[in-house]
Amino acid sequence: MALIVQKYGGTSVGTIERIQAVAGKIQTKAERGDQIVVVVSAMSGETNRLIGLADEIEEAPSPREMDVLVSTGEQVTIALLCMALHKMGCQARSYTGGQVQILTDKAHSKARIKDIDGARVKADLDTGHVVVIAGFQGVDDHGNITTLGRGGSDTTAVAMAAALKADECQIYTDVDGVYTTDPRIEPKARRLERITFEEMLEMASLGSKVLQIRAVEFAGKYNVPLRVLSSFDEGEGTLITFEEDNVEAAKISGIAFNRDEAKLTVLGVPDQPGVAHKILGPISDANIEVDMIVQNIAADEATTDFTFTVHRNDFTQAKEILQGVAESLQAQDVLNDDSVVKISLVGVGMRSHAGIASEMFGALAKEGINIRMISTSEIKISVVIDEKYLELGVRTLHEAFGLESEGAA
Amino acid sequence: MALIVQKYGGTSVGTIERIQAVAGKIQTKAERGDQIVVVVSAMSGETNRLIGLADEIEEAPSPREMDVLVSTGEQVTIALLCMALHKMGCQARSYTGGQVQILTDKAHSKARIKDIDGARVKADLDTGHVVVIAGFQGVDDHGNITTLGRGGSDTTAVAMAAALKADECQIYTDVDGVYTTDPRIEPKARRLERITFEEMLEMASLGSKVLQIRAVEFAGKYNVPLRVLSSFDEGEGTLITFEEDNVEAAKISGIAFNRDEAKLTVLGVPDQPGVAHKILGPISDANIEVDMIVQNIAADEATTDFTFTVHRNDFTQAKEILQGVAESLQAQDVLNDDSVVKISLVGVGMRSHAGIASEMFGALAKEGINIRMISTSEIKISVVIDEKYLELGVRTLHEAFGLESEGAA
Repeated sequence: MALIVQKYGGTSVGTIERIQAVAGKIQTKAERGDQIVVVVSAMSGETNRLIGLADEIEEAPSPREMDVLVSTGEQVTIALLCMALHKMGCQARSYTGGQVQILTDKAHSKARIKDIDGARVKADLDTGHVVVIAGFQGVDDHGNITTLGRGGSDTTAVAMAAALKADECQIYTDVDGVYTTDPRIEPKARRLERITFEEMLEMASLGSKVLQIRAVEFAGKYNVPLRVLSSFDEGEGTLITFEEDNVEAAKISGIAFNRDEAKLTVLGVPDQPGVAHKILGPISDANIEVDMIVQNIAADEATTDFTFTVHRNDFTQAKEILQGVAESLQAQDVLNDDSVVKISLVGVGMRSHAGIASEMFGALAKEGINIRMISTSEIKISVVIDEKYLELGVRTLHEAFGLESEGAA
Repeated sequence: MALIVQKYGGTSVGTIERIQAVAGKIQTKAERGDQIVVVVSAMSGETNRLIGLADEIEEAPSPREMDVLVSTGEQVTIALLCMALHKMGCQARSYTGGQVQILTDKAHSKARIKDIDGARVKADLDTGHVVVIAGFQGVDDHGNITTLGRGGSDTTAVAMAAALKADECQIYTDVDGVYTTDPRIEPKARRLERITFEEMLEMASLGSKVLQIRAVEFAGKYNVPLRVLSSFDEGEGTLITFEEDNVEAAKISGIAFNRDEAKLTVLGVPDQPGVAHKILGPISDANIEVDMIVQNIAADEATTDFTFTVHRNDFTQAKEILQGVAESLQAQDVLNDDSVVKISLVGVGMRSHAGIASEMFGALAKEGINIRMISTSEIKISVVIDEKYLELGVRTLHEAFGLESEGAA
């Protein structure tokens, strides 16, 4: 008998029929003797409907009241799912975040979980109930309703699994697992049976939006085995594990990419302490997040070239800020390019294999793809290239590292 | 500075525009320096939408989960109303029933309030906030969400007013007060400035659906001055008071009526102890509510005629039950008539004025209206007459007792 926490997102519970299908899946597992805790999101469209109502009243509504409003979405789902389970003869009981209770800090709309009292849930499981919990929400010390931010239901599921010491936390989504890369770009992309938390973090932050990054961090912190599965198809999905030993013996697990990059370069700034801060300070003051940063000695060796990337949405603003900064630093020039993308090789196997970077650069060079920036970490190598080479780059690397066949890389 | 509890029903907050209008009304009072607590219902249509979702899943859903589901309706309204108040620069804070907290018994969908903790609300009022509370809902001892049943928001408002020792509880509806009778029947009907709780109870139970009867009882029990006003028009409404001295010096306050009556008579049953129970026992076992009951000695003096009224919806079932009963009691016959109505004179002034009944019967007789049944209480005289005389009967009595002009009766 295993204790399983399952999470179903908004699409999975988007209609009455889908709620009934989810209930069927749950009942099958419950009949097998597993103890099941289910975390659900709002029915798809519902959160947007509620936000739309608020928008009609106030452009910047109070975060406290916004949380009171949107948290009703999940509350509707837990009641309906319990009714569907009852209809199938399955004992079930619902809990809001406040009822569990899932204690958070006070940061409305982006609260973090501080503590979970699993006692009531445990008691219900022990009397044979399926427990259905509203995702994405909690309460602060004063009983005010908080939400964890969009996609926060994943975090609720992982946190519940940690609190209950569950055997596995299963995240049901509309994809059937984590792939070596996006199958829409490389049809030979293969579902991974396992991936490490570290790799998953790198994949997620680079745009594989399978799981909320905070949920993955949480799972890693509390050693919760996490599995991504499809709500609509059968299959084992992808297990996200903290045990590297069990990972496929590959150097590279996957290829992530990000289309939304924009590159900015300050040419010929004096090479002296504090220059990086003088350039990036004003950018960060404007709440613009910087992704890759590269600094090179310029040709004259007394000055330096400073390059970084930002999200394309922030490009225009960053460019304006930088022009002011460049003037005050007496820089030679500011270059910019908003038609670049980033491709990253991700794999814990890199740690024990030298030469991955040169293999990667070689494969790209063979196809005539010019690399604009390079950045490396222990388990990731990222390159910035021209936008037009994105698909070619991904496919080239997918083949070069043999990702289409298991354990071949 | 007064502490006022206001309640707005579903129609009053049925659209974003109406929520904004309600916010405007509240702000005007708050600016005057009054402390305001607002109790709101779900936006009209929302509760039915939620019930519709449940219906798609299960005909008889779990009452616990039904309460989890429908209580989201009011939660949406409190958040939106607070946002609208914020937009007008008015400090406001929302509370669900569980947050207040409004403690109830465990009777899901028809819970009764046991206790209210007014501390948080008081603290918010003292810091200049308008407090907005979800009506119709509470929590039991174990934190399970309960609802007070349809229309229960009135009860929430009265209970909050009692807990906070408010100066007045104002119920905003789509009528601008309590009238001497239904203005659709008698255009000369006049709004009453005051009415006693007892009279209001008689008016409410007879079909003047201005207020939930439970709310009126509650207000009477805790001496909460209750006022009925219109959400849409200005005006003082009608104050429902527990001080008879302040009531207009009239014998009769109003004329209530009920179209949904049906009359059943068992003729010639043996006049012996236990007969009434033998007739009404099976009716009540079938959960049929009996309204008026009259028993007369029959012509032969050894038997009795037994007559009672039920709601027309229950007529067919009651008739069938009665035929079986009549047979076993060896009754002469069973008569029935589902085209009767009830008209009642209501007024605490009756207590000190003799002859009201004969005045009433005389007025009806003059118009040729035959009385089928009579029933009296301390402050009410009800007659059952043929349906076709309803309008004529109401108008005749309205004129006979001079209700069109203040203090004239």
